[in-house]
Amino acid sequence: MALSSQPRVAIVGATGAVGQELIRLLQERWQLPPEDLVLLGSRSRMVELAGRQLQVQSAAEFDFTTAGLAFFSAGAGISAVLALKACNAGCVVIDNTSQFRYEPDVPLVIPPINAAAIGNARLIANPNCTTAIILMALAPLHRAFGLKRLIVATYQAASGAGQQAMDELRAQTRAAADGVPLTHHRFPHQLLYNLIPRIDRVYDDGYTREEKKLAWETRKILLGQPLENLTVPIEATCVRVPTLRCHAASVHLQTHRIVDLAKARDVLAQAPGVVVLDDAAQDQYPTPLAFGGRNEVGVGRLRQSAAFGAHGLAFWVCGDQLLRGAALNAIEIAECVFPRQ
Amino acid sequence: MALSSQPRVAIVGATGAVGQELIRLLQERWQLPPEDLVLLGSRSRMVELAGRQLQVQSAAEFDFTTAGLAFFSAGAGISAVLALKACNAGCVVIDNTSQFRYEPDVPLVIPPINAAAIGNARLIANPNCTTAIILMALAPLHRAFGLKRLIVATYQAASGAGQQAMDELRAQTRAAADGVPLTHHRFPHQLLYNLIPRIDRVYDDGYTREEKKLAWETRKILLGQPLENLTVPIEATCVRVPTLRCHAASVHLQTHRIVDLAKARDVLAQAPGVVVLDDAAQDQYPTPLAFGGRNEVGVGRLRQSAAFGAHGLAFWVCGDQLLRGAALNAIEIAECVFPRQ
Repeated sequence: MALSSQPRVAIVGATGAVGQELIRLLQERWQLPPEDLVLLGSRSRMVELAGRQLQVQSAAEFDFTTAGLAFFSAGAGISAVLALKACNAGCVVIDNTSQFRYEPDVPLVIPPINAAAIGNARLIANPNCTTAIILMALAPLHRAFGLKRLIVATYQAASGAGQQAMDELRAQTRAAADGVPLTHHRFPHQLLYNLIPRIDRVYDDGYTREEKKLAWETRKILLGQPLENLTVPIEATCVRVPTLRCHAASVHLQTHRIVDLAKARDVLAQAPGVVVLDDAAQDQYPTPLAFGGRNEVGVGRLRQSAAFGAHGLAFWVCGDQLLRGAALNAIEIAECVFPRQ
Repeated sequence: MALSSQPRVAIVGATGAVGQELIRLLQERWQLPPEDLVLLGSRSRMVELAGRQLQVQSAAEFDFTTAGLAFFSAGAGISAVLALKACNAGCVVIDNTSQFRYEPDVPLVIPPINAAAIGNARLIANPNCTTAIILMALAPLHRAFGLKRLIVATYQAASGAGQQAMDELRAQTRAAADGVPLTHHRFPHQLLYNLIPRIDRVYDDGYTREEKKLAWETRKILLGQPLENLTVPIEATCVRVPTLRCHAASVHLQTHRIVDLAKARDVLAQAPGVVVLDDAAQDQYPTPLAFGGRNEVGVGRLRQSAAFGAHGLAFWVCGDQLLRGAALNAIEIAECVFPRQ
């Protein structure tokens, strides 16, 4: 695909798990010549990525006036320091961190849902990975039936904590097989054979920031409401599970309008970026292994709500945390700003 | 502990994961002499359990008049054939399968919750493992605040599918470490690094039998209602996760009365068999690894419901599937029938 005007692209956090997916997607989708891709990191060095030696430059020293587009995926702290600098240097910035997501003037965008929110913005926020995956399925259902109340329990993969977290889970697997002690550094507990019901920091009300992000970002993206508008109550439990790169969630919603299950299935089947895989009796449902590496999120276990009756739905959703949850969504935002010819 | 009258004990399904826990608990708690414990299986053979050679007799050929108490843990099909025969031979039968749980005249019992339901029954059903673990925490909260609506997402360990399922998960771990193909037979998909959002058979309404069991058994045990009474709506998603022997659940409830969080914490702390471990900011919450092998279920992440406001609660619960979920609960039932001296 050619873009209307091919910008020179900088990736801040290029060696991370999301950064590597960004590089792969940019090459696949844009056929970006190597000289138009600048990899930025904490310091200048050569790195091996996908078997190739690549130059990484220091993000802090990079002259952003030489790029037209910058992806930020190196943590909120780096975005806080460098994203506005890149913007002021003339870059369109797509920020994968939570640094600017909750600023009223910064669009928070999942392109298949609210691309129009981008407008003329030069700084656009990419949503939380779990939120992005869940909303892909929830948005068409909300349009059809009206979201009234939402309860979610998540099953989040190691990749959400970065490349080293995935490496740690694999290392624990080897240690368990070898019968040697398992160690952990990236997570507060061993993840193999375990569950960690805390992601991100904990607020005084007992909810984690990850759980609040799901509520805040659903309000901003889906409902167009301020973060703290409680008209649609949203409750989540976010749990780290020993999977590698695909998040999943059990989603329970109450609706304003009576849900017709066949219609629900139909709007999901027609939703861009969504695959319905729903024949549980034949063991057809999305799993992290099956949806790892896929651009689409999978929806299954669709059924009428036992809690809310005809005014509700339950479903299971699964999506690649590094793709829809991060890199793919960011690239799709870029493709809205620099549209296809 | 001595029992008022020490019965001779038969265990049907003695070599299974639950059977092995029953043997261990009987030895620990009752100091049962070896000649008073009869291990029954599909056929007569010698087996090695915990490093000892033990005689297993054929359950079908066993004379139940020689025993006073029989635990059944070999699948509903075996219970259907042999449990009533054992009862009629004079045994008290404690059935760990779902065969009789939903018969109105068969008590379904979690002793810390509804021991009185046993009455003079000679056939007593042990609940579904997930239900038993969740209700340990839910029962005191229901007594304090009144359950109005319940939404649960589970994180269920391999042990719920038996010893061979645990072995399969361990074998997949070794295969992943060795870089050889992973195989699966006990589960419909690979479990390592994966999630399987289906447990037990699927009904036409899209719910699985495991999900219905949670609703049915909560109604029977906690509410004393018929299974299909929908006064308290209950909705669940039951998911198999790659853990070994501890089930967990994210529990979301709406209550009749306003919830005082401090009181909720207090009733949980005082509930027998429940441990409150709730300081998420310090990474104190129950995990499957920490609660494997423990008799108590752990509760953490206690917080006011964002979905139902002051009339609701959310929490995380974790418990050993083989103990509270099966063997320990069965032994406690036996100790009600044959009380301590």
